[in-house]
Amino acid sequence: MSQRESQGRLDQELLSLSRAGDKLPRAERRDFLKRGLALFGAAAATGLANQAAGTENLPPNVPAWTKRLGPGVLTHPYGQPSAFEAGVQRRSVEWLTADHIASISFTPLGDLKGIITPSGLVFERYHAGIPQIDPQQHRLMIHGMVKRPIILTMDELMRFPSVSMIRFLECPANGGMEWRGAQMDRVQFSHGMLACCEWTGVMLSTLLEEVGLDKNAAWILAEGADGAHMSRSIPLDKALDDAIIVYAQNGEALRPEQGYPVRLLNPGWEGNTSIKWLRRLEVGDKPWYHREETSKYTDLMADGTAREFTFVQECNSVVTSPSPEKPYRAKGKYFIEGLAWSGRGRIKHVDVSVDGGVTWREARFTSQVIPRALTRFGLEWDWDGAPALIQSRAVDETGYVQPTYGQLREVRGTNSIYHKNAIHTWKLAADGTVTNVQIS
Amino acid sequence: MSQRESQGRLDQELLSLSRAGDKLPRAERRDFLKRGLALFGAAAATGLANQAAGTENLPPNVPAWTKRLGPGVLTHPYGQPSAFEAGVQRRSVEWLTADHIASISFTPLGDLKGIITPSGLVFERYHAGIPQIDPQQHRLMIHGMVKRPIILTMDELMRFPSVSMIRFLECPANGGMEWRGAQMDRVQFSHGMLACCEWTGVMLSTLLEEVGLDKNAAWILAEGADGAHMSRSIPLDKALDDAIIVYAQNGEALRPEQGYPVRLLNPGWEGNTSIKWLRRLEVGDKPWYHREETSKYTDLMADGTAREFTFVQECNSVVTSPSPEKPYRAKGKYFIEGLAWSGRGRIKHVDVSVDGGVTWREARFTSQVIPRALTRFGLEWDWDGAPALIQSRAVDETGYVQPTYGQLREVRGTNSIYHKNAIHTWKLAADGTVTNVQIS
Repeated sequence: MSQRESQGRLDQELLSLSRAGDKLPRAERRDFLKRGLALFGAAAATGLANQAAGTENLPPNVPAWTKRLGPGVLTHPYGQPSAFEAGVQRRSVEWLTADHIASISFTPLGDLKGIITPSGLVFERYHAGIPQIDPQQHRLMIHGMVKRPIILTMDELMRFPSVSMIRFLECPANGGMEWRGAQMDRVQFSHGMLACCEWTGVMLSTLLEEVGLDKNAAWILAEGADGAHMSRSIPLDKALDDAIIVYAQNGEALRPEQGYPVRLLNPGWEGNTSIKWLRRLEVGDKPWYHREETSKYTDLMADGTAREFTFVQECNSVVTSPSPEKPYRAKGKYFIEGLAWSGRGRIKHVDVSVDGGVTWREARFTSQVIPRALTRFGLEWDWDGAPALIQSRAVDETGYVQPTYGQLREVRGTNSIYHKNAIHTWKLAADGTVTNVQIS
Repeated sequence: MSQRESQGRLDQELLSLSRAGDKLPRAERRDFLKRGLALFGAAAATGLANQAAGTENLPPNVPAWTKRLGPGVLTHPYGQPSAFEAGVQRRSVEWLTADHIASISFTPLGDLKGIITPSGLVFERYHAGIPQIDPQQHRLMIHGMVKRPIILTMDELMRFPSVSMIRFLECPANGGMEWRGAQMDRVQFSHGMLACCEWTGVMLSTLLEEVGLDKNAAWILAEGADGAHMSRSIPLDKALDDAIIVYAQNGEALRPEQGYPVRLLNPGWEGNTSIKWLRRLEVGDKPWYHREETSKYTDLMADGTAREFTFVQECNSVVTSPSPEKPYRAKGKYFIEGLAWSGRGRIKHVDVSVDGGVTWREARFTSQVIPRALTRFGLEWDWDGAPALIQSRAVDETGYVQPTYGQLREVRGTNSIYHKNAIHTWKLAADGTVTNVQIS
């Protein structure tokens, strides 16, 4: 209701492109629409307004599909997107990895709405292709410094009490190409190692209570069943706090590339710690220093030391519209939209600038605000057609403010690959196209 | 954190089937697992325990997929479920509709987790097949008793401020087959005209402010662009309250069978009022009394009068596990799970009975509790192997208590088709199978 009221207050400020045309008599309105559509570059639609000339008592378009039967649904008992949305898909950056067997695909953030990422579009990174796992044969072993080691079937795991939580998942390399100034030409590539789903499973704390921890237990090794045996060391505090052994995503079974039939999820932490295809949890008293926490997922500082075990994904945000994928077509009223998130909890507020950070206006939230989930924000803007530098700056509930590139480089130098969360800038040109620029 | 703590308290009560086995030495544990698996009827897995005999330093199963490369991801840029989940799909009831061109498909509630329904599994009803609509050609007209009639392209509609909300959608005929005692043999069929998604679009109130309402405006006709021109009359109060003109579902564009490219959503109301493939909103001063609000979607009372415009989907709930799709395999510890929802707001609490309503225990929520969204509940239960009658009873924030069949029939007679929200009973037999029975 308060959401509606805040919308109501804004209605007076809002004009759609067609508004001037709507005050005209029908025939002129139709002409206006033709001009408007031409402006939008929608040539195919021009014929429609003509088609409507003889149908004064109906909306101006009576396309063929309103006059015939369509196909039934059960030809697709598992539904698919419209063919008109075929361009909305995960994509990879060819030069980023050496082989498709160990690659990464990016979520098309520019085309998405709300905060849930459809499972078919969730980014992922994999190191040995996607294992095709039979859930009847899969086992999860919990052993090491525990009183009662256990080997669980999926059926057994699913008999424990379950929980469901909406949480984001982000690769710490998200935006990493930008540390040294590379400017990816889509929001899909600049920020698309990011997704948000409803995850269902068993709290890891429940399973650890089941096996009984030894008194010196302090770390847990999580290991995957993929050919790479991907593994990470997780501090026990996190395991006992909010880590989940996940078997479902957005209401259905995990997708194969997301760890089917079971994965670890460490909410708000580096995505790679949330081991997929989870086969083994070993409890120990110190970290294992495996490959993915030494040669990878560490950051070389200016003084030659390396940051290690940098688990938390700090507060970050990005404007998704306008973006290279969502250019503007003509001056007028728009709704600047974007996403904010923090591995430390809830997003507290988001500011938006259209002048490269000189002045800021507070955006409002247009989705639920859930801790460690994506939060969608928006702000009305009347674009006068002049070039603009569009930014967002998020603050989380701990008071952490998303830094500028200058602030980030001051602390972390320029050798990093991971944990780039600097304020991002889109340059909106006079012709409405959008490019990625860096402002320090 | 409090969720974790409450989980923690319950851990002591929890035993998985394999627990006794986990206290045994490894070789005996393996034997136990073999027996356990045989009990679970997983014949294929029996070989696994044998396979592990020579691998004392590894988890007992080292299946082929842990030793080879899998396929890359971008062969499926739009991801799909695992082939092992092929049975999780929408289904229809053959005798329910005369033709596949006007049919209904049911959400497989028994297989789903959490509160989000994957878009590919959302139930739907359609009357002339699924129109294949080109979004560039689609138009939404708002006219009638308004000051400035408007015809919007999709591009124009998407420039208005947007909102995203997680809300359930339910057909008022959900469970309607049970009024006279028909007992559907799956929770998919007894309650599967039900789904819950994140919906994104423009508040209808925003668009109505844009066109300006005449002072006598009181109702709105919503009309679809499908061959059936499906239509319903909506009171203006609802339109100005929380109705949304929706173009996205679970983060991506609406699915074709859900109204692509744009639909109405009246949260908490009869699903059929949320007109799909929305082409026209006509503002008037009285309802239109079209087919779907006279000959359909009205209920004949015992005194010969009919209830009409029964918009709200009242508080309801169902246990999804155990259910005919999720039988029990052996006595022991289980987590009874289900869904509750109310068209009037938040679910306040849910009680569960295992003795046909003689005694009740309060369940806990295992998902977020969102107004007019599905809410997931669960309760630990140690099944002693005796036959049981399992029920759930939900209460919403208005204090409304889900009725028994007896209470519902007392008020509404037995001629109804719609708005059956009586307490549902699953009969769990000694062999673990589950059937649908009615207790008045």
